[in-house]
Parts: sequence; C-alpha cells; structure tokens
Amino acid sequence: MVKLTALYKKPADAEAFDRHYMDVHIPIAAKMPGLKRFEVAKITGAPGGESPYHLIAELYFEDFDALNAAMSSPEGKAAAKDVGTFAKDIVQMMFSKVEEKVRVAI
Amino acid sequence: MVKLTALYKKPADAEAFDRHYMDVHIPIAAKMPGLKRFEVAKITGAPGGESPYHLIAELYFEDFDALNAAMSSPEGKAAAKDVGTFAKDIVQMMFSKVEEKVRVAI
Repeated sequence: MVKLTALYKKPADAEAFDRHYMDVHIPIAAKMPGLKRFEVAKITGAPGGESPYHLIAELYFEDFDALNAAMSSPEGKAAAKDVGTFAKDIVQMMFSKVEEKVRVAI
Repeated sequence: MVKLTALYKKPADAEAFDRHYMDVHIPIAAKMPGLKRFEVAKITGAPGGESPYHLIAELYFEDFDALNAAMSSPEGKAAAKDVGTFAKDIVQMMFSKVEEKVRVAI
C-alpha cells in the first residue's frame, strides 16, 4: 500500500477551512479512482504545546501506479485544483510507501 | 481513534537512520501500552519532485486518555528517549483526532 499525505498548516480562518474541507473538498477527493482508504485527522497539538499544523489527510492506494493514475485522472486533477482554491500556501504533500511488515492492524 | 504522528525530515545518513529506526526504535515504540496500530511509511517524494521528509510514523490509540497514558508510561518514555538519540533535530510530532465519518476502510 502507498499513500498521499496532505499536511495542512494552520489556516488564517480555521472555521472557513474546515467547512470547505469537509463539505467541498472531501466529496471531490473521495471520487479519485483506486482510492482504498481516506483518513482525515484534525491536529490538536504537539508534545509540549501547540502544533503549527491543522489537519492531516491520507489517501491510500494499492501501489504507485494506482496513485499516479489517480492523480492524473480528471477526478485527481479536480481535487488538486480545489486544494489550490483554499490551501495553496499552507499544504505540504508527500508520497510514501507503507512498510507492511511494521503495520499493526487495529 | 486518535494518533501520534512523527514526521522525520531527511537525515544526514539515511542508511544509519533506517537501520536504527527499524531495528531499535520500532521494537521499543511498539511496546507502548494501548497501541492499536503502528504504521510506518517511507517517503519517496512529493508532487513535482523531492520531499524534505524521509519517514512518517503513526501510532494509533483509542482516545487521548490512552495516548497520554502511553506517553507517560515507562515504555513511552523509553521511546521518546530513543528518538532523542537518533532524530532529535529532524522530528516533528503532532497529535490528532481521526474523523471517523470520513474514514474509508481498505
């Protein structure tokens, strides 16, 4: 399994960000083909105090071929375009490969 | 479900980092009481090129009480102490609450 992680720094208007993220962005991003799992978590702090981050989203795909295909698809392009409308300057994205041997299921 | 995310920037010596992480750190961290899931993923890049990050680890707990108890436990303190030995200057940690309504299971 591989994932696309989107880590969002604290937005200027957290309420407006959350509304757009939950009501607009998720329905768009969830349409990406091959998406196996979509996990969104609101960041609440860090050891010793505040975190500079607000939200972390992780989109899981079977492999990098599937992830690349999803990002190149019309749905993936729509999701990327939407990010540009509300989080262009505060988002950091990264690709990663899950170490299956380490993973402990819930 | 809540999680502790540890995001590691690229280390000076990736091979030494990986060896310590996989062989020493994971066995220590995996002993934390209440740990429900432990997911480690190696970062391979970012849209458009390189990522400044090397590895992302996520430790899932039932709730913040369980997460706080784990971090305060001898096992949690040992894990934090170990991080200090190999990744003190390159790790960012954050706490977050998973949005259960969004989460799509594999």
